[in-house]
Amino acid sequence: MKVGIIGASGYSGETLIRLLSRHPEVELACVTSRQWAGQRVDSVLPAMRGLTGNLCFSASQPEELAAADIDLFFLALPHGVAAEYALPLVAAGKKVIDLSADFRLSSAETYQSYYGKAHPQPELLHASPYVLPEWTAPGWESASLIACPGCYPTSILIPLLPLLAQRCIAFDGIVVNSLSGISGAGKKADEYYSFCERESSVVAYGIPRHRHLSEIEEQLSFPAQRAVVIQFTPHLIPVSRGIATTIVARSTASLDAVYAAWNDQYASRPFVHIASPGKCPETRHVVNSNRVDMSAQLDERTGNLIVTSVIDNLVKGASGQAVQIMNLWLGFSETAGLL
Amino acid sequence: MKVGIIGASGYSGETLIRLLSRHPEVELACVTSRQWAGQRVDSVLPAMRGLTGNLCFSASQPEELAAADIDLFFLALPHGVAAEYALPLVAAGKKVIDLSADFRLSSAETYQSYYGKAHPQPELLHASPYVLPEWTAPGWESASLIACPGCYPTSILIPLLPLLAQRCIAFDGIVVNSLSGISGAGKKADEYYSFCERESSVVAYGIPRHRHLSEIEEQLSFPAQRAVVIQFTPHLIPVSRGIATTIVARSTASLDAVYAAWNDQYASRPFVHIASPGKCPETRHVVNSNRVDMSAQLDERTGNLIVTSVIDNLVKGASGQAVQIMNLWLGFSETAGLL
Amino acid sequence: MKVGIIGASGYSGETLIRLLSRHPEVELACVTSRQWAGQRVDSVLPAMRGLTGNLCFSASQPEELAAADIDLFFLALPHGVAAEYALPLVAAGKKVIDLSADFRLSSAETYQSYYGKAHPQPELLHASPYVLPEWTAPGWESASLIACPGCYPTSILIPLLPLLAQRCIAFDGIVVNSLSGISGAGKKADEYYSFCERESSVVAYGIPRHRHLSEIEEQLSFPAQRAVVIQFTPHLIPVSRGIATTIVARSTASLDAVYAAWNDQYASRPFVHIASPGKCPETRHVVNSNRVDMSAQLDERTGNLIVTSVIDNLVKGASGQAVQIMNLWLGFSETAGLL
Amino acid sequence: MKVGIIGASGYSGETLIRLLSRHPEVELACVTSRQWAGQRVDSVLPAMRGLTGNLCFSASQPEELAAADIDLFFLALPHGVAAEYALPLVAAGKKVIDLSADFRLSSAETYQSYYGKAHPQPELLHASPYVLPEWTAPGWESASLIACPGCYPTSILIPLLPLLAQRCIAFDGIVVNSLSGISGAGKKADEYYSFCERESSVVAYGIPRHRHLSEIEEQLSFPAQRAVVIQFTPHLIPVSRGIATTIVARSTASLDAVYAAWNDQYASRPFVHIASPGKCPETRHVVNSNRVDMSAQLDERTGNLIVTSVIDNLVKGASGQAVQIMNLWLGFSETAGLL
Repeated sequence: MKVGIIGASGYSGETLIRLLSRHPEVELACVTSRQWAGQRVDSVLPAMRGLTGNLCFSASQPEELAAADIDLFFLALPHGVAAEYALPLVAAGKKVIDLSADFRLSSAETYQSYYGKAHPQPELLHASPYVLPEWTAPGWESASLIACPGCYPTSILIPLLPLLAQRCIAFDGIVVNSLSGISGAGKKADEYYSFCERESSVVAYGIPRHRHLSEIEEQLSFPAQRAVVIQFTPHLIPVSRGIATTIVARSTASLDAVYAAWNDQYASRPFVHIASPGKCPETRHVVNSNRVDMSAQLDERTGNLIVTSVIDNLVKGASGQAVQIMNLWLGFSETAGLL
Repeated sequence: MKVGIIGASGYSGETLIRLLSRHPEVELACVTSRQWAGQRVDSVLPAMRGLTGNLCFSASQPEELAAADIDLFFLALPHGVAAEYALPLVAAGKKVIDLSADFRLSSAETYQSYYGKAHPQPELLHASPYVLPEWTAPGWESASLIACPGCYPTSILIPLLPLLAQRCIAFDGIVVNSLSGISGAGKKADEYYSFCERESSVVAYGIPRHRHLSEIEEQLSFPAQRAVVIQFTPHLIPVSRGIATTIVARSTASLDAVYAAWNDQYASRPFVHIASPGKCPETRHVVNSNRVDMSAQLDERTGNLIVTSVIDNLVKGASGQAVQIMNLWLGFSETAGLL
Repeated sequence: MKVGIIGASGYSGETLIRLLSRHPEVELACVTSRQWAGQRVDSVLPAMRGLTGNLCFSASQPEELAAADIDLFFLALPHGVAAEYALPLVAAGKKVIDLSADFRLSSAETYQSYYGKAHPQPELLHASPYVLPEWTAPGWESASLIACPGCYPTSILIPLLPLLAQRCIAFDGIVVNSLSGISGAGKKADEYYSFCERESSVVAYGIPRHRHLSEIEEQLSFPAQRAVVIQFTPHLIPVSRGIATTIVARSTASLDAVYAAWNDQYASRPFVHIASPGKCPETRHVVNSNRVDMSAQLDERTGNLIVTSVIDNLVKGASGQAVQIMNLWLGFSETAGLL
Repeated sequence: MKVGIIGASGYSGETLIRLLSRHPEVELACVTSRQWAGQRVDSVLPAMRGLTGNLCFSASQPEELAAADIDLFFLALPHGVAAEYALPLVAAGKKVIDLSADFRLSSAETYQSYYGKAHPQPELLHASPYVLPEWTAPGWESASLIACPGCYPTSILIPLLPLLAQRCIAFDGIVVNSLSGISGAGKKADEYYSFCERESSVVAYGIPRHRHLSEIEEQLSFPAQRAVVIQFTPHLIPVSRGIATTIVARSTASLDAVYAAWNDQYASRPFVHIASPGKCPETRHVVNSNRVDMSAQLDERTGNLIVTSVIDNLVKGASGQAVQIMNLWLGFSETAGLL
């Protein structure tokens, strides 16, 4: 199988290149970048030396890509741009995994409300399943376009979805605080994200309506079978990679029931690690891995369940998860190229 | 006035040395350290070169210190040890500001419950006012022993106390997440706190009953006039200094009322900065300062108030606040030595 | 005395604001910034809250500044721009301390060779003494325009000048490696200096002719009484502040003679700390201070002297040194506002 | 083939576990740790979750290990301890790759001079070739015990050896400055290596006779066919991983000759990247890889060649190189498990 990455010079793109160039089952045949077209991948991204051979960035005309001998494309493009590529590629019979937010919502209205513009391809919204590999029910494989979940959402949905489905927590009053490494903001020239401005500093942001909230609440509402409204506060912390999420929810079941709900869903999955109560996971243990590590604790004083989870925002929160989706889609081992 | 620091070789002690050696109104006449007795301060702490002259660490027998020509002592000792010094010093007529947790609670039972041992000097608990300079009502100045608030508590109480007093938020359901720099754990030889283990890693800890919770809830209960139980989750982040706190509480008043409650209490105070809604404070702006910076925002969707505050855990969260207390106690300008 | 800072929104400018707003002898009456004119200093630079009162950035027309009621100006401007301000200010009778490289060289040819353009005010080059306060001989005080040494040069010249003057090392074959924090590159929006690109990375740069080399070699040549050519390699390391310099030179005298040369020159100076052989100084001990810490060691195997020195590039390497020059120039205590 | 790691709980050991658990050609059948014997690898080292299955640390009696069904052992033990294991394992017919310094020198006297004690197994010194895979001539494969080069030495020898062999630089006057991440000091509980003491600080150390100097100079002397004495100054910088080395040497050939010497030796080797003059390599590009990246530049003013090289101290400087040696020794692809 031949795969391509469209928009491969950002952090998610670079992580995809690394994962796919070592993948045992696919050939990375095409990586595009408007900025770097014509240059060797390993001259633009020196960390790729020895991995990408003579591979060069190419230009990225949708029509040419649609005509290329490539079976599956990853879109690692900014929001709004990805949609421009999805339609011609799908029309040409390609499989497409989109890492942007363009196809994560089922409602064009919600998209407009959170992203401030009309959705560019609303007709595709219902043909593009949102696939969280450990949760999404089989059937999505027949689609042509898959929406890959966002980084904050992955760290929140993996622990919360089974707890809502199994009614282990109350639907209202959920409070989520997430701490993200700075790569989540993308590769960019911006004084605010310069080393000296970010080093040693912590700040909350995106209050009260971070864009990922739309995706999180929509996904939570499915098992809850009603609208779920949460309080979500992201923070920027001075590390490159990693997300740590802390969730407080009113407990409506025992801690055993919480762990049972998790184990039922995840015990056999290679990329979810359920740690004992009190063993809070640390981001250093998941950086460069595709895992979610998580644990839960009950506070008898407040009646709350406290859940903590960690991921690498660029791997399980983006590129690793996209490769995991590809593995399942194409019938490879779920862990191929990801250990 | 002559002042002394007992237990001066840790991070709080070092910060006190720096502040007091430059203070325009007092003479730092005595710094003790069992480990370093007899050595020059600036040979043990090279950052003090040029600030402490020939000052040497001395031994720390309580009786000798009680007899010394020193007007006021700062105790920068571990919990449990501070109490051993407080009694003889107070008995000898010294003023004492204790930076440990030993005298922060009014109840010996709560102390035992959170610190796991009987309080060593329970008779002093009611003679040792807890002084948060911007909040505590006048009258505390007649005491001989002052309990200086902890770092997490300072970042939480400064924003929350006026909101409870003015009934701007509900008493129940308060959720606090705090992120602390690693100096909060003290200066120690411990693999867990080594550079390579901590660099780039984030972790929640102390769930569900961090020791500071006892002090936070006791203080919150006074303006609320009832017990207040909160959900408090501290996190360790890879910076040396700084605490960022994010508080979610059910709003029972307008955002204007919140800001009015804050301005009534703090508008004239030099070390509290009230930022506009949406301007989340950043730790980089308060590191090395004695300020609390804070702001609030209302989430119409959830009905919650979201408050964020930042401090330097070693300055406003410990040594700077202790100097501020001294300034007020001894009748100096509140900002003397602190700008 | 009233002082002003022209170009006050960069890192050197911000450090100057901090130092001058707390200075006991001067009033910071004017800070200019084209970008921020009209805005409060503490809204642009929140770390200044509580220090700068209502002070606002003003525009920076040279003529207006020349007419202002200000006794002394600091120029914290980019190279080439500083020269535009120096002439009118000096002509108007102001004292001027320039932190840029514009007036550090005595030769317009050398300037052109290293900075790639003709010097904008060559007639001022001989009227602008290069003042390294611990080294420069008295007499410079009668000038109107003072060139403040650069950051790398300060860390190199302080240890080396007495050793050349006292013939403790050979004139040729000197090898200097310096490691600098990223604030040395200035405040800017540049992907290369973004947090994620710089975090955890080290790189040499500026080989073989970093611009500071011109200034270093010119200054070294004076005590040597001949041209001195050195090998200078700067490195960028992932910290905000601090320079560590390691110098290797062929020894032509005993280690005692080295320390004697240093002590003769510096023993009475408040901002030079001479550490014992083998006690290599660390940048953490000088960050936020105006000190140079240094030590030396002799390698019997190679016959080389190895000198290590550290400074804070923004304080002793820029703004602190400029204030120190002002203190000496205006007859204040050398340490005023700098401890 | 079955392999084992003796002393697997330090940073080199952990890196070996990661590399070998994913290696396509070998089975990691045994990992020992006195401290953690009996515990699952992934409970002690949570980053290994999903990689090491049920593998547990075992105790490490040399006799039992000698009797085990293991073909090749890696010794990731402290200096002095490794030698205790080497003799019984070799006697039992095992292949052994030692990552410690115990067998890197050919002279027991040099060992005693640098390590301060008699060599524990001097009879093995001449039966244990020092194998730098890109340099060491064939023939070493018949030995039973291989000494794996140290981290600083690898970053220095790879660029320098061909230049000495091809007489591109003078034998005397070589000055080497290296900057190392803190993992080079090992995993330990030591206040000096705690996060708050190391964060943001840089310091030179080990002047003038760091232990690695013995190994570097011995290896340089072989192609030079005479004793080579260098000036080597290591520095500790606040990153976990990575070494950047800057070498200054008097040039005796053209820059083309330098690149020709390098290309002759390394052009076909997968783990050496020769960058163009002026393109200084950065540690971020080699972290987690087994590469050495390097470049050179000629300074016409001084007649010196300036070489810069970077490695990951735990991969090419330790565990990756050991796996590379194993690959060549056992006839696998040189890059197996290392891309």
